[in-house]
Amino acid sequence: MQHLLSVNDMSEDFMIEIWKDSLKNKDNPSNILKGKILTNLFYEPSTRTSSSFYSAMVRKGGSVIPINNVKFSSVTKGESLEDTIIAMSNLSDCIVLRHPEIGAATRASKVSSVPIINGGDGEGEHPTQTLLDGFTIFSNNNLSLDNLTITFIGDLKNGRTVKSLVKLLSRYKNNKFNFVSPENLRIPEEIRPKSCFETNNIDEVLERTDILYVTRVQVERGSSHDYALNIDQLNRLGKKSIVMHPLPRVNEIPKEFDQDSRAKYFDQMKYGLWCRMSLLEKILS
Amino acid sequence: MQHLLSVNDMSEDFMIEIWKDSLKNKDNPSNILKGKILTNLFYEPSTRTSSSFYSAMVRKGGSVIPINNVKFSSVTKGESLEDTIIAMSNLSDCIVLRHPEIGAATRASKVSSVPIINGGDGEGEHPTQTLLDGFTIFSNNNLSLDNLTITFIGDLKNGRTVKSLVKLLSRYKNNKFNFVSPENLRIPEEIRPKSCFETNNIDEVLERTDILYVTRVQVERGSSHDYALNIDQLNRLGKKSIVMHPLPRVNEIPKEFDQDSRAKYFDQMKYGLWCRMSLLEKILS
Amino acid sequence: MQHLLSVNDMSEDFMIEIWKDSLKNKDNPSNILKGKILTNLFYEPSTRTSSSFYSAMVRKGGSVIPINNVKFSSVTKGESLEDTIIAMSNLSDCIVLRHPEIGAATRASKVSSVPIINGGDGEGEHPTQTLLDGFTIFSNNNLSLDNLTITFIGDLKNGRTVKSLVKLLSRYKNNKFNFVSPENLRIPEEIRPKSCFETNNIDEVLERTDILYVTRVQVERGSSHDYALNIDQLNRLGKKSIVMHPLPRVNEIPKEFDQDSRAKYFDQMKYGLWCRMSLLEKILS
Repeated sequence: MQHLLSVNDMSEDFMIEIWKDSLKNKDNPSNILKGKILTNLFYEPSTRTSSSFYSAMVRKGGSVIPINNVKFSSVTKGESLEDTIIAMSNLSDCIVLRHPEIGAATRASKVSSVPIINGGDGEGEHPTQTLLDGFTIFSNNNLSLDNLTITFIGDLKNGRTVKSLVKLLSRYKNNKFNFVSPENLRIPEEIRPKSCFETNNIDEVLERTDILYVTRVQVERGSSHDYALNIDQLNRLGKKSIVMHPLPRVNEIPKEFDQDSRAKYFDQMKYGLWCRMSLLEKILS
Repeated sequence: MQHLLSVNDMSEDFMIEIWKDSLKNKDNPSNILKGKILTNLFYEPSTRTSSSFYSAMVRKGGSVIPINNVKFSSVTKGESLEDTIIAMSNLSDCIVLRHPEIGAATRASKVSSVPIINGGDGEGEHPTQTLLDGFTIFSNNNLSLDNLTITFIGDLKNGRTVKSLVKLLSRYKNNKFNFVSPENLRIPEEIRPKSCFETNNIDEVLERTDILYVTRVQVERGSSHDYALNIDQLNRLGKKSIVMHPLPRVNEIPKEFDQDSRAKYFDQMKYGLWCRMSLLEKILS
Repeated sequence: MQHLLSVNDMSEDFMIEIWKDSLKNKDNPSNILKGKILTNLFYEPSTRTSSSFYSAMVRKGGSVIPINNVKFSSVTKGESLEDTIIAMSNLSDCIVLRHPEIGAATRASKVSSVPIINGGDGEGEHPTQTLLDGFTIFSNNNLSLDNLTITFIGDLKNGRTVKSLVKLLSRYKNNKFNFVSPENLRIPEEIRPKSCFETNNIDEVLERTDILYVTRVQVERGSSHDYALNIDQLNRLGKKSIVMHPLPRVNEIPKEFDQDSRAKYFDQMKYGLWCRMSLLEKILS
């Protein structure tokens, strides 16, 4: 049985296989998971992630038990995460778990009789986000993740998305990293590549950026910094550059940039669907 | 691509086609929407409308992503309606949108890559309610919407249901309108047909009513008027008259009238399912 | 049309048929309920029961309308249970109703045009729980429910689970009952079999127990008694004994007992799925 708990669980071969399958099949419906049931077990709300898995499972012919209100459920009767997981693994063939605590997915995997997919565990990991982020770069960069200059901007301290993507891109060759944030929201030392450039001024690095990865101001995680880009800044990016964002955005990127061919943040939603379809097929069939 | 935002989007031919299809196919299941996904995106709760679309989509072989708790979702992270719509239109083939603000469905249609069906936008419109209301009259009046005397009773000021149905029936020939309400809940002037009768006493018009359309006291919209009918009043309606109500009712119609052959308000639910099945097939296949 | 409102609605033959079918088909998917729709109408949260019915319906090829937030729905607009039931019975082929009031399912059955399954009505009944409890004993006791010594421990006053299972087991031959609880949580007199043993000390009966049925401390029903078993006590049970629990548990049974072959409480979840699959097929096809 194959769990997906961390970016570390995904080898290069594993990802390349999923990405190539995603490019080939996109969101074409199939019946390969007919009769299979996925549980979307969300202890925190995430319409985007839960809907993406929902759609992916259904497009592959399967069904989904949507549990989006765990706080209204038996958990309020004092049940442990482990007992809930054992119960749901008796009712379904796979569980996507979103939970506010780091390590929750790993705990779940130790008692589950079906595969666990980590759909985000607090400040921990969210490997399918990294899978789709990687695919966005892969499919917009001639099927390669090498020789890139990637600029991350925003709250680089608290978000798991940036940490996981840095981890992924560090595996590949000749990538350069720029980190743009205020002092108090710098990327943690244990994640920061040895060779990188840190600044609090995006204008210093815009022209030499291939991938601009913008993150939301994570107010609910305790930061309050506003780091909005304007259209003039975005237009200074190279013609082949791309702009990514894990969404939801607040005001980090202006709406008028949405139609620009370099804007890939809504494509990421579509790519996420494709990758999750391929992933579910790989894990479940 | 065909959105359904307003009663104005439905021509007579469009409606007749849906109604004839509804009469023919009723709720017979089919597989024509197999592999298709509908998003039920409800910013306001409406078990009735969301369940009706859910059932309609499934009876046609499709699937539904149920999003009934938007307040617990990414919207609480400050995401705009437009961004949510773009995201969900990347994950599904059609979106039913229920939203508390007038014009929300129109805004959604401007950014969506898939058809938007307005499932109610505040005081604005709710076109599939009008579609099923029209069908109720159509199927109980020899497939015609002409030559009728229609009496509306209740809060005629705030409810979108009445306004839309008046708009629809005004298109047809020789219809007469009675509006029964207290002074402060009269039908707005811009909706009121030139020739109509207004009163606050239902007894003045009961005998000469073909369609009695009763509306709920919309307490949550700021009115507090109680306008309950009793069984003696209802029995004074003609034998071929019908009584309609968009539901939910509180005490406007007594339960003892439910078994009367003139009571059509629960049939409206069934008709709504049929009409939405035909509509989804028309829009999506 | 066949409702399932109470344990009294299930004859021995009815149950044996379901149990034999469950043993034969387990959770093997089929398509027999293709095109059929179940409404999960939950006025109280119960992730476990609603997910079990959801999975059962889908494994049989059908679909489910999940209504888990009735407090956010039209009910808040003052609609009666009866009107909601009539509406949902126009949209689906069967309704599982969970409601906080005794008798709610019976009220629902009087107006519904489709079968009602009681998914728990307050202190009343929860017949499918009894069905799976019976199956757990049946399948672990050579397909018989006779000649057993059953010990119930915990809050025996407020829980419907115990009452219904006692009722069921009283139908069979030569069963002996032990009831272990504090004085103020004794089993009600109208349920208590004429011949039984009552105590507040589990150690008096452990060695001569075939079935140990442990119940949760129902804090939300007003009791506060802690009645946790330890591993030494559980190990004094006979080798062929089994330990059951309706779940969720808090601390009544220690986790270290979970791997013991006598622990059947997680199997009960699995058995519940099998029994509900057989039941839905029986009622709907």
